[in-house]
Amino acid sequence: MAKTNPGRFFEDYSVGETIRHAVPRTVSGGERALYHALYPARHALYSSDEFARECGLPAAPLDDMAAFHVVFGKTVPDVSLNALANLGYAEGRWLRPVYPGDTISSTSDVIGLKQNSNGKSGVVWVRTKGHNQRGETVLDYVRWVMVRKREPGSDAPEVVIPELASVLKADQLVVPEGLDFTNYDFGLAGEPHRWGDYAVGETIDHVDGVTIEEAEHMLATRLWQNTAKVHFDSGARPDGRRLIYGGHVISMARALSFNGLANAQMVVGLNGGAHANPCYAGDTVRAWSEVLDRAETSAPGVGALRLRLVATKGGDPFALKGDDGKYLPDVLLDLDYWALVPL
Amino acid sequence: MAKTNPGRFFEDYSVGETIRHAVPRTVSGGERALYHALYPARHALYSSDEFARECGLPAAPLDDMAAFHVVFGKTVPDVSLNALANLGYAEGRWLRPVYPGDTISSTSDVIGLKQNSNGKSGVVWVRTKGHNQRGETVLDYVRWVMVRKREPGSDAPEVVIPELASVLKADQLVVPEGLDFTNYDFGLAGEPHRWGDYAVGETIDHVDGVTIEEAEHMLATRLWQNTAKVHFDSGARPDGRRLIYGGHVISMARALSFNGLANAQMVVGLNGGAHANPCYAGDTVRAWSEVLDRAETSAPGVGALRLRLVATKGGDPFALKGDDGKYLPDVLLDLDYWALVPL
Amino acid sequence: MAKTNPGRFFEDYSVGETIRHAVPRTVSGGERALYHALYPARHALYSSDEFARECGLPAAPLDDMAAFHVVFGKTVPDVSLNALANLGYAEGRWLRPVYPGDTISSTSDVIGLKQNSNGKSGVVWVRTKGHNQRGETVLDYVRWVMVRKREPGSDAPEVVIPELASVLKADQLVVPEGLDFTNYDFGLAGEPHRWGDYAVGETIDHVDGVTIEEAEHMLATRLWQNTAKVHFDSGARPDGRRLIYGGHVISMARALSFNGLANAQMVVGLNGGAHANPCYAGDTVRAWSEVLDRAETSAPGVGALRLRLVATKGGDPFALKGDDGKYLPDVLLDLDYWALVPL
Repeated sequence: MAKTNPGRFFEDYSVGETIRHAVPRTVSGGERALYHALYPARHALYSSDEFARECGLPAAPLDDMAAFHVVFGKTVPDVSLNALANLGYAEGRWLRPVYPGDTISSTSDVIGLKQNSNGKSGVVWVRTKGHNQRGETVLDYVRWVMVRKREPGSDAPEVVIPELASVLKADQLVVPEGLDFTNYDFGLAGEPHRWGDYAVGETIDHVDGVTIEEAEHMLATRLWQNTAKVHFDSGARPDGRRLIYGGHVISMARALSFNGLANAQMVVGLNGGAHANPCYAGDTVRAWSEVLDRAETSAPGVGALRLRLVATKGGDPFALKGDDGKYLPDVLLDLDYWALVPL
Repeated sequence: MAKTNPGRFFEDYSVGETIRHAVPRTVSGGERALYHALYPARHALYSSDEFARECGLPAAPLDDMAAFHVVFGKTVPDVSLNALANLGYAEGRWLRPVYPGDTISSTSDVIGLKQNSNGKSGVVWVRTKGHNQRGETVLDYVRWVMVRKREPGSDAPEVVIPELASVLKADQLVVPEGLDFTNYDFGLAGEPHRWGDYAVGETIDHVDGVTIEEAEHMLATRLWQNTAKVHFDSGARPDGRRLIYGGHVISMARALSFNGLANAQMVVGLNGGAHANPCYAGDTVRAWSEVLDRAETSAPGVGALRLRLVATKGGDPFALKGDDGKYLPDVLLDLDYWALVPL
Repeated sequence: MAKTNPGRFFEDYSVGETIRHAVPRTVSGGERALYHALYPARHALYSSDEFARECGLPAAPLDDMAAFHVVFGKTVPDVSLNALANLGYAEGRWLRPVYPGDTISSTSDVIGLKQNSNGKSGVVWVRTKGHNQRGETVLDYVRWVMVRKREPGSDAPEVVIPELASVLKADQLVVPEGLDFTNYDFGLAGEPHRWGDYAVGETIDHVDGVTIEEAEHMLATRLWQNTAKVHFDSGARPDGRRLIYGGHVISMARALSFNGLANAQMVVGLNGGAHANPCYAGDTVRAWSEVLDRAETSAPGVGALRLRLVATKGGDPFALKGDDGKYLPDVLLDLDYWALVPL
């Protein structure tokens, strides 16, 4: 038993430490095809090398959320194997597209620790970075999780709570080198709506729904080498149900949002996100969005929209929280992100 | 809601119009691998680059039916989102193989319109073309669908019913440039039967069966970016069942037909096809074929067989229609196509 | 019916014959991605081109078990279509890694025959070889199966029982050209345990479990072009259950063994294996290993471990056989293999 990974406990983290995560991963057209099989993904920039080249990129990148999952998956054995809850995300920035042929690895800096008052667990903040084979950072985000203590009675570490921006400012967003939407082909992209057509406060019901199967979420979660037992082993939880990886819901909702946001091509910022309720096989996932903000960028023809993306398994579109301020039981995900949109 | 695609209604089509479909798609070895995982596909020309090169092609193409699905999938948001029925196919020709690395897009010319006598719907005929990144047409077929009217009372358009060949003549078939079956390796292909071994009227029971799962047909249908709600959303139909994309049954039957038609390598013509009854998860798909015609081609060692391919979910092989002339309830598909076979 | 493959019967084999199996297969990044989606595979050498290059290989190979499945799948139509039981494996050696772009074909030499005393069936031994497009042998193994006779009363062939090594000697193992673990990065590989840290007799519970779905085992089995009806057709067996391909259990167990054997990177020898009990969808597969032997190799920094890998669907880890010497009902697989491990 000593040779298997027991995961880290709250006591095993110290602020300032950098964790180098294992199992680098080379992605190819295979990952891209699987992403399109697993999600109804249709953003043209990620579907067509030709469309991407017309927009100034060398080829169609791997979907930004797939890049996120690859980077995230590597952190699971070191960060969330003994996690009681995935509490939040902040300051996520996609710094460079990931292309077929790239090899991705991850590191995490421990940037905050706070033991819970019950003495049995604590909150760990990490800033995770994804790197490609040239040592360039492709993604950078903060995540915080509640982690079990190994010994409930042990001393609490010094409290360090990182200062995190609730929202990335537009000038913090990184537009991929060369991106140019001046000659953007709205016909091939699938919708005519430009950046200027979206108003702050506007809401969009993405209409479509997908009923989730066990085989699909497990294929996805394994593809990102996420090893958390609860996703795969029907014996891991008392109720015998396999909990669906929250990232599967993110990708499903983002793909569904094509219908109304087909031109919100590139995800460049993650301001925050909450997995409001668990998702299980048999749930039918739907999505709606709200335009939270708009910003210009320095790239030709490229604007940015700050969007709330909400995934549900039923209920009225646009319903989010109850009178008690808590998420309604049908809400699965509340994500706040920045996307690049043609002007 | 205004930003999502409501689909087109019968009134939105006019004869002579060309619809440019959205979301071009680059295919890779990933799509090829997924096709082999989703269907028991074993035709050697599509499985082995080396076998394809021995037959004069530069590499193994993407399966012809996969090429069809990619082209077809793009048309769904513009042609069949409000379709009440998929009525037929005609004059389908594969003009050029699709290879990994190719980027495929689709256009459709509206070639016929006829309002139904009930005034609530009408039939739309489109000629759809698939194009690669060099602007070459890779596939060309006619499909007609029954589409709902937006306003039942509105005026009927002029009736235009296109003249369509019930069967493509052999000299209309396009043999891929360079194809040469002179040194065809029957051993590696899996069966010894040549073009001359098949007699018109001969029937073949393909013996094998595959029980269909929800996850599989959804993976396939998403891979082709077909977005029709009925395939994915268990809430889309009153009976709560997800209807399986007819193309999934086509590919399953074609792959099963390897057993007896291993040398019917390339699909080059689609004379017609009917989705006789709906297919659902849990059905076990089987297939049988009938040789309808034989023809020579100008390519070395290459003959053509016209084949009826029938998919069933039970019942006797070779049973097709009842005394009333209607398809038997277990028949799923009746497809009429031309394939290239070594002499 | 005459054109479909009825499979071979016991009478159809003769010692000395070489069977050339059909349908060569080119593999790509697509097969690699699917392997990672189907199994929780995390061995770094097969996940990262960069890691593989640091170990002296040109790129990350296709997983060794995937190579095995591709080679094995081709033999099914000729060897096991009428098999009553898959009896054993011996003398399996991986001779060369398989890389994306390689085209694999298989041949089998019939090396043994023994009719059963009931006169209704017999045992056939074959030595199967996998070849790449350069004619190099990539894999070589012996398998024996019990095959039905076509005519129960027919004459028995001369009995030939091949002499097979119960265990490959270390000097029979082939270390891939260039492999060098001198600068092996244990951090990126995921575990610190070196060859010298494993003691003969040591057992490891791999802890994780995966609940199997019908869609997944069928995707996998089709991907390897294994056509045995019992895996796909719920009507093929009286109980209506689809039997899971034994190789799916092998790959699942091997991938699960990462947790504790992350550095057992390359599988180079297969000493033997038994599919102890059938596996069905809904079973939760777990795994444990026992270190059976250790050996040095001539390659820099490279040692070999002989490992027993046991897959179960429940029961106590490390339990294998009952007092009657038979496998316990929860044991699915008992595999004996050699793996290469950094010193």
